[in-house]
Amino acid sequence: MSAVRTVGIVGTGVIGAGWAARFLVRGIDVIAFDPADGAEEALRKKVATAWPSMLRLLGEDHVEAGKLSFTSDVRELAQASDWIQEAAPEREDLKIRLFKELDEVARPDVIIASSSSGYLPSRLQMECRHPGRVIIGHPFNPVYLLPLVEIVPGDKTTDETMERATRFYESAGMHVLRLKKEIDGYICDRLQEALWREALHLIKKDVATTGEIDDSIAYSAGLRWAFMGPFLTFHLAGGEGGMRHFLDQFDPEMDLPWTDLPFPEWSDEMSSRLIEGCEKQAAGRSVSEWEAKRNEVLVDIMHVLEKHGIGAGTVLSRGTAVTGR
Amino acid sequence: MSAVRTVGIVGTGVIGAGWAARFLVRGIDVIAFDPADGAEEALRKKVATAWPSMLRLLGEDHVEAGKLSFTSDVRELAQASDWIQEAAPEREDLKIRLFKELDEVARPDVIIASSSSGYLPSRLQMECRHPGRVIIGHPFNPVYLLPLVEIVPGDKTTDETMERATRFYESAGMHVLRLKKEIDGYICDRLQEALWREALHLIKKDVATTGEIDDSIAYSAGLRWAFMGPFLTFHLAGGEGGMRHFLDQFDPEMDLPWTDLPFPEWSDEMSSRLIEGCEKQAAGRSVSEWEAKRNEVLVDIMHVLEKHGIGAGTVLSRGTAVTGR
Repeated sequence: MSAVRTVGIVGTGVIGAGWAARFLVRGIDVIAFDPADGAEEALRKKVATAWPSMLRLLGEDHVEAGKLSFTSDVRELAQASDWIQEAAPEREDLKIRLFKELDEVARPDVIIASSSSGYLPSRLQMECRHPGRVIIGHPFNPVYLLPLVEIVPGDKTTDETMERATRFYESAGMHVLRLKKEIDGYICDRLQEALWREALHLIKKDVATTGEIDDSIAYSAGLRWAFMGPFLTFHLAGGEGGMRHFLDQFDPEMDLPWTDLPFPEWSDEMSSRLIEGCEKQAAGRSVSEWEAKRNEVLVDIMHVLEKHGIGAGTVLSRGTAVTGR
Repeated sequence: MSAVRTVGIVGTGVIGAGWAARFLVRGIDVIAFDPADGAEEALRKKVATAWPSMLRLLGEDHVEAGKLSFTSDVRELAQASDWIQEAAPEREDLKIRLFKELDEVARPDVIIASSSSGYLPSRLQMECRHPGRVIIGHPFNPVYLLPLVEIVPGDKTTDETMERATRFYESAGMHVLRLKKEIDGYICDRLQEALWREALHLIKKDVATTGEIDDSIAYSAGLRWAFMGPFLTFHLAGGEGGMRHFLDQFDPEMDLPWTDLPFPEWSDEMSSRLIEGCEKQAAGRSVSEWEAKRNEVLVDIMHVLEKHGIGAGTVLSRGTAVTGR
């Protein structure tokens, strides 16, 4: 595989433009295509908006920048690219046709990655002559700041493609989450979708407003989720015994009516996966050590939010009678 | 109502001890009860652990501290308290009995708040002679750092109790989320539970490990949730048209199979609640202004995580070939 010098980006909405910014700031050239009127101007504007944040994130001395070009011919893009990142509208039929066209023109060693947030890669690759190089590379908005990318293989995707994709996205400053198998919505969007649906049920039941639901996250669980997922959070909730103790106290038969999402049927295998998974994540640190670390990070995040006058920071700057702040 | 000088805390596990620390650091005396062996020593140890983080959060010059005492007699606690915060084990029968006993002894103007994470306050107050002062005051772990408290009225809770509870918790540095009506699990835990159940389904389907699921949150959505909930996030995803445009593009009939939680039946009323809610939250700021703010906060949070070598910060400190960091 030759180094990726030019990335072709198909579709330059919020996600495609975010990819362009991420690659350009790392010195990679970008050639972009989007059939919409005024797309090039809109793309250049979005990249310009992203630029100061990326420089601040990476360090002010950062100067390397790739060259951005635009084409009205998707075949020209496919010929010129060492990597293709599709970010077209989320319609499966459109993506399947697009992948067929890109696959016909691109060099066989060029990986074609879809930014789809849910379609199965086996479907996207099914009309390609070189399906082994087709993969999902699903990012999160804003793509130029958030580091996660989920990579998902279809039935015909090669292991070599998964390896190369991992190295490439890591070189673009990303954290690669490599799925073992394909599933609709992959991982993060399934979790987000579950939370979103429950939030919609609360709106429908008129229990709370959108602002109240947002606050319920931003002033509590969200502060932890910025650096710990749900499992490590519950590992800490288990005290020194961690997840093992948490599950001992926990009765999987007790299906509390707290959401309409059914609880999965429990098994010893489930328990083992949770306990072993969390112990691996804890990486030899005790729960008290993790608590101390969690507290350090939470305080620093809350100070950031205080500086920006947002969320949990507004509570701090409001101060209280007794602290005299 | 006289000022709250002494809070009685019933049950001194992780949550009760967290409450004690939050009140003590603000100069409020605490009298605690817990029947477990060694409970007093464990409580003092937990408060000592919390102390440095709270001082750092509130400012190092913070010196005011309440007095902590412990009693083996819950009636003595009820007599001595200006506010009672129950944090006993999560068993409804036990809480109902405890509320009856506390209510018999406490002055009628003393609010008795339950830290329950899901029971209905109408059930907890049903055997009390003064049910109007019974309320849910549900905090989040670590209680001494995370500012959210959900307050929930039962059928018989008075408006005055809700008002006084709001003022009291705000004086203890909290963000009060006042529920209009009671619902099992209240708000935040329903959202967390939906996400948790979906995570368990992913474990059961063997799609990902606990660590991978945690990473999928901590490297993406969790960074946003630290200061924005799901609604404001999607408002920004809608571009300049915000939630209105987001919903225009969105087909509520298209029930993508991304979680087993059923999608709520859609209505114009739902759309209005979402659009009006988000426009109120945006508070006159355009989507671009919110994006700029979001980027500022995200970059600062990621720098905090880099300093602590955790989550999204590890990607930054790893650097990339092209940035030369």
